[in-house]
Formats: sequence, structure tokens, C-alpha cells
Amino acid sequence: TQNYRITLLPGDGIGPEIMSVAVDVLKIVGQRFDISFEFQTALIGGAAIDATGEPLPAATLYTCRNSDAVLLAAIGGYKWDSLPSHLRPEAGLLGLRAGLELFANLRPAKILPQLIDASTLKREVIEGVDIMVVRELTGGIYFGKPKGIFAAETGEKRGVNTMVYSESEIDRIGRVAFETARKRGGKLCSVDKANVLEVSQLWRKGMTKLASQYPDIELSHLYVDNAAMQLVRAPKQFDTIVTGNLFGDILSDAAAMLTGSIGMLPSASLGASVPGVFEPVHGSAPDIAGQDKANPLAQILSAAMMLRYALNQAEAADLIENGVLQVLQQGYRTGDIMSEGMNLLGCQAMGNELIQI
Amino acid sequence: TQNYRITLLPGDGIGPEIMSVAVDVLKIVGQRFDISFEFQTALIGGAAIDATGEPLPAATLYTCRNSDAVLLAAIGGYKWDSLPSHLRPEAGLLGLRAGLELFANLRPAKILPQLIDASTLKREVIEGVDIMVVRELTGGIYFGKPKGIFAAETGEKRGVNTMVYSESEIDRIGRVAFETARKRGGKLCSVDKANVLEVSQLWRKGMTKLASQYPDIELSHLYVDNAAMQLVRAPKQFDTIVTGNLFGDILSDAAAMLTGSIGMLPSASLGASVPGVFEPVHGSAPDIAGQDKANPLAQILSAAMMLRYALNQAEAADLIENGVLQVLQQGYRTGDIMSEGMNLLGCQAMGNELIQI
Ligand SMILES: CC(C)[C@H](C(=O)O)[C@@H](O)C(=O)O
Ligand SMILES: CC(C)[C@H](C(=O)O)[C@@H](O)C(=O)O
Repeated sequence: TQNYRITLLPGDGIGPEIMSVAVDVLKIVGQRFDISFEFQTALIGGAAIDATGEPLPAATLYTCRNSDAVLLAAIGGYKWDSLPSHLRPEAGLLGLRAGLELFANLRPAKILPQLIDASTLKREVIEGVDIMVVRELTGGIYFGKPKGIFAAETGEKRGVNTMVYSESEIDRIGRVAFETARKRGGKLCSVDKANVLEVSQLWRKGMTKLASQYPDIELSHLYVDNAAMQLVRAPKQFDTIVTGNLFGDILSDAAAMLTGSIGMLPSASLGASVPGVFEPVHGSAPDIAGQDKANPLAQILSAAMMLRYALNQAEAADLIENGVLQVLQQGYRTGDIMSEGMNLLGCQAMGNELIQI
Repeated sequence: TQNYRITLLPGDGIGPEIMSVAVDVLKIVGQRFDISFEFQTALIGGAAIDATGEPLPAATLYTCRNSDAVLLAAIGGYKWDSLPSHLRPEAGLLGLRAGLELFANLRPAKILPQLIDASTLKREVIEGVDIMVVRELTGGIYFGKPKGIFAAETGEKRGVNTMVYSESEIDRIGRVAFETARKRGGKLCSVDKANVLEVSQLWRKGMTKLASQYPDIELSHLYVDNAAMQLVRAPKQFDTIVTGNLFGDILSDAAAMLTGSIGMLPSASLGASVPGVFEPVHGSAPDIAGQDKANPLAQILSAAMMLRYALNQAEAADLIENGVLQVLQQGYRTGDIMSEGMNLLGCQAMGNELIQI
């Protein structure tokens, strides 16, 4: 028996209910493949603020560090929106990324044939889209200094943030991106704003330099404004995209929304020699929390990504991913992806259908 | 007779050919409304680099300052892409914005019923979309300091740019946005990244403060990643959007591309007491330059925007805008917006059809 320590971070809103379904699925899959999981639940986000006053208690970071992988659900909610920013749920997420040095964020935006009509884009434009956004996650304007609100001599306030990347930060995310592209279609598009920003010029230089070490990968560059346009115009042109923290935040969400079913998308955040964090792309949806209405499939697919990337259990991951396709094929839908003639299920019931496959 | 001094900046690529058509249209319209134009042509971008070694010669800025309005076509091209950034065509554009203090950039993204099929989005999603993006244009990370590529003590290079906004910068763009929303649907959405960036927190505070002076305007806030998603998911929810320089660059291009016909979109860049600059949203399209294939309509609509916003000639602007709708209605199309059963025209011929209306 292979044994893994998994830290569960259910967080806020719909987090606990989708996490519970994903854990059920992992347990069943573990039985089939002779994998045993030791689950430990820890606090993050609003739940942590309520219990401890801090969005990321030291104990949570400690538990995460001492596990093989971390499965996160979602954080945040109206309730904590008026707190000062270092005490808000988001600060817990940023602290987790920084604390574990999770510098690479992998966000797939893949269209599922069963859900193609959920997209706002025309079928012929969106059919077959399969994009992986590799977003730098521990640098750039999210963490650069100086940052803050400062008063000038005149008394007028100025808000300041700094977008900064060093050569080594660019190099390490670039390597992850080239390796990712190699496992996929062999095409990598680096997105920057090198016609205006010096930090982007250094970024572009770093990516171009790496390209000589990956002669099998076709590297191209786009300015971020053009990339946003091209995602809308012709998303099929993209295979793997690599970009900085802020541009990645924007473009990965835009790419995800092209599919029309953001409730289906998982993501992975990886570091050099730390446990990875796996989480759905969607948020905590406080408006439907606790009503058994949430779509658990992105959380379940995040668990599959965890099996594949962190635990090297590709077969178990395949089983889950195929299972998800099958429940969709059988016509089961949660409210967010419901369409005419389909069979509406709650969160728990969707998990039960999947487990029976 | 009303007399106006107009500076023409044809720039690069298709710039000269679309500018020439727009000037023909202005002349005809001028005759009908007893307006006389004194046109002066000046150099900018690649054309200026080739002639003078600089992307924005002092003479150009001088000519622009001493005119009632500036009509710009497009700048840039592969030819100048390898020059150092302060000598590239883009530097001319940024210099013009800074030199004239054009702090407010108005970018409409409006779907024309005749071209609705050009959109990659489904008809029911895109029908009736009419968004105005008000982008701050002389601040933020485009101009903030420190900026540059610096070597650390270790010898490693770091690229640095600074996103900075002062209260007064936020206030003045906010006022333009609230006034713009007032002339439109009365809804203003301010886009920032206040859950991560301090500069955005100051931005949000400034917009919220202004709202009390515009009680008739409904102000909302979105994070930039969510805004990018919402533009794809349900673009009709937006009326007027206000945002900073970088987010505005990305979102205005995404919004423009939703329409599917970026060759149709004009824009205006305005300052406090300087001539405004009016230009198409599209670029210089070097691949089709000089072939009489370009779509001149965005340039012509930019001339209409100039008449409306800078010269206070709303009737003349109406005439042009209605004329554009009519040529489309009659089935005339340039290559970029061509579809089956329509009548394909070159750049010059499209201008001629319009003039005959
Ligand atoms: C919640 C927020 C801080 C976060 C980010 O901006 O990174 C989120 O948008 C994301 O993409 O994971
Ligand atoms: C050419 C470039 C410098 C410019 C910008 O980034 O502002 C362009 O993308 C635009 O939006 O006008």
C-alpha cells in the first residue's frame, strides 16, 4: 500500500461541501488502486479568521509543509470584505503561495464536448480548445516592493505597487512552461508588455534565451492586450501560455470563461521541492453555500490533478477524469451547467453518481 | 464659416491610406456644414524615425499643440521592432500622450447590427452590446518610476516598473468617467485589483468618494480578473467602465474584440485644455499596407468622434456615423469584415461609396 499525507483546506463558502465530496471520491479511488490517504484538515481564509483572527495560522502552513500534497477548496466571502487587507481571506491564499514558494500555477482551460453549449462563443470557435496557462505565482506586482499608500510632501496620497522580476525568477517559471509545452502540443506563447514595460523586456529576453535549450518547442510572444484579443478571436491558436502573476491572473480567468463552465476547471500550484496545492479555479460562491447546490466537479478534478502531478498516480487520475466525462455523458448536471433535457443534481448527489461509475 | 486647424498624423503601415480617405470625407462634410479645415500633416512613429531619427520630433508636438484637434492613424511595424525601446514607434505614441497630457482615453466597443455575425460570440450574447471604456492614459505603470533594468549586488538583473496613482490623478479620470456615464446609460463600473494592490485600494476609495457627487450614477466595482471574465460571459451588463492605464489597455482590447470588427472602432484621447487626439483602435497592419485593402471606417469614425468631442459639431458627426451604417447596410465591406453575399471593396472605393451618401 502506498500511503500519502494530504492536507485539506476546505476554506469558505461552498468549500466544505465540495471538499467533502472530493474526499469521498479519493477514498473510493484509493481502495481500487491500493492507495491510502491520511487526511488532515486545516484552517485558511475566512474560516481561519473567525477561529484564530488570522487568515493563515502558522499551524496551517506547518501542516501543509509536512504533507505530500494540499487540496484547497475556496476562500473568501462578503463577511470579511471590510477587514484591512492583511487580515482578509485573500491574504491567507497569498501567504500560502509565498510560504510554500509555489511559483508555478498551472491553469487548464479545456472545453468538454458535453458542455460546449455552455460557452458564450460559437461552437466552431470554441470546439477543441485546450489551453494551459502557466502563471508565475510568487513574484511580479503581487509581492514587489515598495508597495503601500504614501503621503507626498503636499499631503496628497499616492498608491504604489512594484512589478519586478529577476532573471532567475523568469528562468524557473520559463523552464516549467517549456516542460509543460513539451508534454502538450509543443507550442509556447509568452505574454508580456515589452513594448512599454522594462520588466517585460527582461522577461522576453529570458524566455528567448531558454528557447535555445528547448529546440523542439515553438516559442512565440504576444503583448498582453493582443493576447486578450486573440483569446476571444481565435482561442484554438493557443497551446501553452506562460506569463507573469498579474497578466496570468487576468488571462487565465478570461481563458477559463471561454469554456463557459468555470465550475469544471481545476488548477495546480507547484514549487521546487514543496507539496503542491491543488484547487478549483472558481470561487467560494457564498450566495449558494450550504445549500447542496454547488458543482463539486472542479474540486474532484483538482484531486485528479493532485494524483497526477504530486503523487504520480496517473492511472487513478485517469479513472477520475474519465468518470467525470461519463457522468456528464449520462446527462447529470449541477445548476451552474444545467441545460434543457438534462438531469439536475445537487452537490452530494453528483458525487454519488460519480462514485458509482 | 467655422475654421479649424487639424493636425494629421498618418504614421505607419496602412496609416497614410486610411488617413487620406478620412480627410476626403471631412472635406465633403465640411462643405455641407460650412466648416473649413486647415490640415497640417506631421510625422510620428516609424515614419518620423526614418525621417528624423526620433519617433516624436519636437516639431510634431508643437504642431499638435497649436491645433484644434489631432487625427492620428496608426504607428509601428516590424521594421522598427529591434530598435531600443525609447527609439521605437510606440515611444512616439506614449510621448504624444504625455506631452499633451491626454489623461482620458475613451474607447467604445459597440456592436453594429450589420456586423453582428463577425463576432465570435453568440448572437444573443453580443446583440446590443454598447460599452465605453474610460482608460487613464498618462499614469499608472506606463509612466511610474522607478523603472528600468537594474543589476543586484549579485550581478543578477531585475526588471522593475512601478504602478502608481495619486489621489488627484484618480479624481480627474473619475470625473471624466462619471460624466461619460451620465451621457450614456448611467452605470459606471470601476475595475481594479484592490484585493491585492494598494494602488487599487486608493483607486477604489477615490471612485467611491466621487460617487457621492454623482448620485444619479450607479457605481459598481469589479476586480480585473473578474471583469475579463464578465466581458466574455455577459458583456451586456456593462455600460461605462473606468480603469487604470494597464487594465484599460487589456480590457478595452478584449471588449473591442467581442464585437468581432475591430476595424470599425474609433477612440478619443482627451486632456484638460489641450487638443484631443482621435485615432482608430486597430493597428498599422504592415502586412496589407499600400495595397488599398485596409478598412478606412474606424479612421472615418475617429474623425466623427473628433467633430463631436473636440469641435462640438454633433450634426456633422451624426452625418458621418449614419453614412457608415448606410454603406454597411448597402452591403459594402472591406476584406476584414467581408462575409458571404456582400460586396468587397478596397479602402479608397469604400471611402468613395461613403462620400456619395
Ligand atoms: C483571490 C485573489 C488574491 C487571487 C489572485 O489574484 O491571485 C485569485 O484571483 C486567483 O486567481 O487565484
Ligand atoms: C502601442 C502601445 C504602446 C499602446 C498601449 O499600450 O497603450 C496600444 O496598445 C494602445 O492601446 O494604444
